[in-house]
Amino acid sequence: MFERIDHVGIAVPELDPAVALYTETFGMGLLHREVLAEHGIDAALLNAGESRVELLAPLEADGAIGRFIARRGGGLHHVAYRVEDIDAALAELREREVELIDSTPRRGMLSARIAFVAPQAAGGVLTELLEAAPR
Amino acid sequence: MFERIDHVGIAVPELDPAVALYTETFGMGLLHREVLAEHGIDAALLNAGESRVELLAPLEADGAIGRFIARRGGGLHHVAYRVEDIDAALAELREREVELIDSTPRRGMLSARIAFVAPQAAGGVLTELLEAAPR
Repeated sequence: MFERIDHVGIAVPELDPAVALYTETFGMGLLHREVLAEHGIDAALLNAGESRVELLAPLEADGAIGRFIARRGGGLHHVAYRVEDIDAALAELREREVELIDSTPRRGMLSARIAFVAPQAAGGVLTELLEAAPR
Repeated sequence: MFERIDHVGIAVPELDPAVALYTETFGMGLLHREVLAEHGIDAALLNAGESRVELLAPLEADGAIGRFIARRGGGLHHVAYRVEDIDAALAELREREVELIDSTPRRGMLSARIAFVAPQAAGGVLTELLEAAPR
């Protein structure tokens, strides 16, 4: 079902220092920045070779990332697996009665199609499926 | 510096049900199982396409994974990036004065050479470098 780990999502208190840290420490390149206002997130996508790292900072204290930061002070937030066909993958998961947060795909960064599986269906891990936009 | 995300490490209360969950839910294949007694860990490595997922269950309640489980009930524990030459990568990080947990590589599963970067040097994320064993 999965091609590879596409990215890990890392919650950080502030985006700019985190982008600086990851680019300077590990030599990652900044691929993209985007404010996802409807999710209360300021986001940056970095490349880690053929994988990516998504840094997520809260726009508001009471959004999902703001509450995660308040609880844990940041850290690993989710893992995303690359799929070739997200509709087929979701149909397969529905057939296995896997609990989904998104039963149909929504738009992610760089026009990817994404959907989240409920953490309780994946050993406590917030799990994302991602179908990249056609190049 | 990084070729890709090699794996995510997921802490789980018990190994067998977690292996069953991941193989049944996501169709992952079990690559390897190993008891890492010196680290108090019962571990399984699953394939997620060309990436892997490492499931980590505690052998004892007061080890690193046992305490993580007690605090959070399980979930994402670390991320590992694949490097071609771990000695060169560690030398580069030392030159940048990045805080390391392991200043020299130690043996990981399947005879990989691994080393951990301190979480405080990576935005609160326990970060592993992994050089795979020659095939």
